[in-house]
Amino acid sequence: MKPVRLALLGCGTVGGGVVRLLRDNGDRMAQKLGAPIELAGIADRSLKPDRKLGITAALITRDASALVERPDVDLVIELFGGYEPARSLILRALRAGKDVVTANKALLAGHGAEIFRAAAAADRAIGFEASVAGGIPVIRTLRDALAGDRHRSVHGIVNGTCNSILTTMSERGSEFSAALAEAQRLGLAEADPTLDIEGHDSAHKLCLLAMLAFGAMLKPDQVHTEGIAQVTQADIMHARDLGYVIKLLAIAKDDDGTIEARVHPTMIPVSNLLASVRGAYNAINVHSEALGSTIYFGAGAGQMPTATAVIADVLDLARRRMGGPAARGFPLGFPLSELKRARIKPMNDVVCEYYLRFAARDQPGVLGAIASVLGRNGISIVSVIQQGRGAESTVPVIMRTHQARERNLRLALRQIQQRRIVEAAPAFIRIEDRL
Amino acid sequence: MKPVRLALLGCGTVGGGVVRLLRDNGDRMAQKLGAPIELAGIADRSLKPDRKLGITAALITRDASALVERPDVDLVIELFGGYEPARSLILRALRAGKDVVTANKALLAGHGAEIFRAAAAADRAIGFEASVAGGIPVIRTLRDALAGDRHRSVHGIVNGTCNSILTTMSERGSEFSAALAEAQRLGLAEADPTLDIEGHDSAHKLCLLAMLAFGAMLKPDQVHTEGIAQVTQADIMHARDLGYVIKLLAIAKDDDGTIEARVHPTMIPVSNLLASVRGAYNAINVHSEALGSTIYFGAGAGQMPTATAVIADVLDLARRRMGGPAARGFPLGFPLSELKRARIKPMNDVVCEYYLRFAARDQPGVLGAIASVLGRNGISIVSVIQQGRGAESTVPVIMRTHQARERNLRLALRQIQQRRIVEAAPAFIRIEDRL
Repeated sequence: MKPVRLALLGCGTVGGGVVRLLRDNGDRMAQKLGAPIELAGIADRSLKPDRKLGITAALITRDASALVERPDVDLVIELFGGYEPARSLILRALRAGKDVVTANKALLAGHGAEIFRAAAAADRAIGFEASVAGGIPVIRTLRDALAGDRHRSVHGIVNGTCNSILTTMSERGSEFSAALAEAQRLGLAEADPTLDIEGHDSAHKLCLLAMLAFGAMLKPDQVHTEGIAQVTQADIMHARDLGYVIKLLAIAKDDDGTIEARVHPTMIPVSNLLASVRGAYNAINVHSEALGSTIYFGAGAGQMPTATAVIADVLDLARRRMGGPAARGFPLGFPLSELKRARIKPMNDVVCEYYLRFAARDQPGVLGAIASVLGRNGISIVSVIQQGRGAESTVPVIMRTHQARERNLRLALRQIQQRRIVEAAPAFIRIEDRL
Repeated sequence: MKPVRLALLGCGTVGGGVVRLLRDNGDRMAQKLGAPIELAGIADRSLKPDRKLGITAALITRDASALVERPDVDLVIELFGGYEPARSLILRALRAGKDVVTANKALLAGHGAEIFRAAAAADRAIGFEASVAGGIPVIRTLRDALAGDRHRSVHGIVNGTCNSILTTMSERGSEFSAALAEAQRLGLAEADPTLDIEGHDSAHKLCLLAMLAFGAMLKPDQVHTEGIAQVTQADIMHARDLGYVIKLLAIAKDDDGTIEARVHPTMIPVSNLLASVRGAYNAINVHSEALGSTIYFGAGAGQMPTATAVIADVLDLARRRMGGPAARGFPLGFPLSELKRARIKPMNDVVCEYYLRFAARDQPGVLGAIASVLGRNGISIVSVIQQGRGAESTVPVIMRTHQARERNLRLALRQIQQRRIVEAAPAFIRIEDRL
């Protein structure tokens, strides 16, 4: 049988993993596919030949543009990351009749519609399992396995760096800065961790999950995004007292056609499986109408896990390629014409339960004053924890609210702060009880 | 586009769910597939027309044999369950050129090879996602998503009845019989619960998981199978003290080509995600070489969850059918010629850590006597809990061992019992610490 020939763009960590898997499991893959898989070329500026991995000098090129158009290439694996030249190369590859596998979440979140349209126009397929949650097969699950159902919500721990930091804070009592420093020391956080800890990486992934789950196209800047730097050890301990764990969640909900999309520290019940996801692991909870909740857990990053996702796409696309147009299916599981620009629910209209933390002045009547401002804004309180004195003559007051509209909550907190019954800006964390 | 026409064999709980999904989400499915899906006929002896579900009298037949061969049928959904007539009907359908979707784990575990061979001979596809863990897409995940990797082990909570009973015992302090009675009252256990509580249902599912994960064909009677009736409240409490939870696990491991396959109550660390799977839910942990552990969690049974799995297979097979032979792939993900009869590791050769419970005579030297018999059999002890007096002048002695061979353990326990330093047969539960 005619081999399937791959062009690899970028041979860093994940690319190296792909080459290793092809070397180690290539025979079995050929058997499963009914055709051998071969590397046609690798575009990488700094790659050296490596006999052990079977990377010969002849395979390596600096000219990625030429490689993606070569007639002996069937399928292009884009692992450069970032917007350019990744975007141009993918478009060029599709136009040249190649199928494309990519792990580039930032590109797909920002320019997905353009790329999916180009694939449809060229009648080619595009696989992007590796772009979300590494080796966890959540993309194909949403696309294929849950295809007969309607999805209501997606809750994901999709950033291993943030989850590692929050796990350290929770298990060792560290504050954020110390936990971040440790994650950096262990190589779990970048030297510049902004993209991760401010939630932007999670927002990128959420855009892709929402696109698959709801057929809704949204851009990262439409996702309400908060990072984890404001989470304190006090919050983590109070959360525990209330039966909760704090995780950075990427949340998307379909509220009758209006999409709620947000990334922020979230309190979830300790009994929920997501609460037990420790360290750099990822997990995604998909809630569907007929199926209910399913959860997908595993390594969300790392060389070999991510490489397995790339290879799964390669096998899938190669089989679809052999099957011809009818077998190809849609990259999102539905026709692109059905991908609608999302109607986004403004964050002010989101309804949540809240955890509130006030540094109250140590004087009589403070609790009553806080409660009455909340009450006037239609926010009712489930429970209050008032502890002994804190530092500098303030008293920490912890409250859990019933469901309230974000607009009302923010207004109430502003009023409380203005009335100077608290010493600092009140802190709040959203609670997701039913997921 | 030409419609895809379905014959439904059996319209009970799951069949009814399939009809509902086709009615509610049929438009979206047609869109995803590029062709409408239609019911051609339903074989069911007791089914009455139902206008709400679109089940007309003309759709209903008692002649399943004729239905599966009708030229206007493309795909047969077998939901009769059991061996016959399910087996004959599936074979007949395949020979008549129909693709087949089935939820019949008992049939596939017992006669899978015959059925897969018939599908290959007829060049037809067979889908069986619904046969294991209801709506959790673990079959296609093993077949497709993890296709580039090698799997080392599978640990599954795949029987909701047993997990419900163990959850009740663990959370409410009930003994087995009371927990079973409650599960029966709630409809979570059958009037005759044998197939579930003795582990046979789990063993059936394990055969299918092992076939997909390791390419190893094994029959249910080759799976060492123990049920949960022997688990006591004392075991559950001692497990908790040691940091463990007791679950009925279906375990398969590939030890360099030798397959370990067993179903039994198992102690797993409380920190493992499987330990948090409560009630009737299922979860499967797949450990793979490159990917590490991934876990798939959700509703393992029930009308709508199982129906979503059937529909996912229908969509998948319909697409493959439209794509022609090259797109069809293999039902197990690899050529049938690669499905080897499993070389089974005898249970006596399995190496585990063990939890042991003795009802020791309340006299000096008993602990030493037990320990020395264990020691002579090469079994070393990690920890001992010796409590106050139990009933009838016996003292419960709890031990946790290091890794030991099952043969040695059984021999030691027999010697301890013969030496009459204990009052009753010692109880043991296997521990899985690394999964």
